Amino acid sequence: MNPPTETSFTYVPIGTIHSPFTQLDGMPIQPAGAMGVRGRIVIREKFLAGLRDLNGFSRIILLYPFHHSQGYSLEVIPFLDTVSRGVFSTRAPRRPNAIGLSIVRLVAVNGCELIIEDIDVLDGTPLFDIKPYTPLFDSYPDEKSGWLDGNKDAVAAAKSDRRFCGTPR
Amino acid sequence: MNPPTETSFTYVPIGTIHSPFTQLDGMPIQPAGAMGVRGRIVIREKFLAGLRDLNGFSRIILLYPFHHSQGYSLEVIPFLDTVSRGVFSTRAPRRPNAIGLSIVRLVAVNGCELIIEDIDVLDGTPLFDIKPYTPLFDSYPDEKSGWLDGNKDAVAAAKSDRRFCGTPR
Repeated sequence: MNPPTETSFTYVPIGTIHSPFTQLDGMPIQPAGAMGVRGRIVIREKFLAGLRDLNGFSRIILLYPFHHSQGYSLEVIPFLDTVSRGVFSTRAPRRPNAIGLSIVRLVAVNGCELIIEDIDVLDGTPLFDIKPYTPLFDSYPDEKSGWLDGNKDAVAAAKSDRRFCGTPR
Repeated sequence: MNPPTETSFTYVPIGTIHSPFTQLDGMPIQPAGAMGVRGRIVIREKFLAGLRDLNGFSRIILLYPFHHSQGYSLEVIPFLDTVSRGVFSTRAPRRPNAIGLSIVRLVAVNGCELIIEDIDVLDGTPLFDIKPYTPLFDSYPDEKSGWLDGNKDAVAAAKSDRRFCGTPR
């Protein structure tokens, strides 16, 4: 039997996300904790034509590298909990393949610049992809949220700290 | 002024997605069109500890490369429409940074194997990341869906064809 292949995939950012958050301390940890926080995205000019029709969507999905995250831990204490959890049951940045996902409000599209709200990422974060958010594919209001279901009240208020910077604890 | 940097980011899959779909023809194009279709994910053993606590979530987010997609088009005719749209307003695979996102039902976790439903990806697709889906962060039932709002009835029935294989049209 062959060992698992180690094929790798490489991506070059299509643009940059700008936000008021210049350091990890005190950042909201999800868009739900960043309601109304305004930011913008600047897309590289060569991709401008890809933005057509996006302005009909009121929310978009951003995929981006957690570019300040180094290494990973398989078990982490999430911001919203006090005990260790498997990293794939969390949104923690220090994960294998540290790709982030944020669902933000789209306020306006002006050429290569997008104005967004509910942004929870660091200023200067590179952007991999924009996908339209649609309730048809993406909204499942009644799903169970595992350990998070016991911590709902903490979500909107929670801010990040520096526990996911630097090396594993 | 400096030109935009071309920093790249490289990812190695954590596992593989298995589904009944061995070719692109006739595939559902979103989990909404694949309700009840069962598949499984096999995670590499070294990542096993990261799966702890995931079984409390009834739905998970998968990030994966569209590994059969080559090149990209900035304007595409989506499966659910008859006119050309900017690629970032679609979920089409042939996009810059061809990373796919599917929100699937989590049925069971058995060691390194996850049983999933509503799976809409090709058999053998490499997997980058699993994130827990939670209505707290991810469910926005009232958002506007741009061009898709006129095509709602087509969503559940739609199947893909080969238009996103191979070279740009």
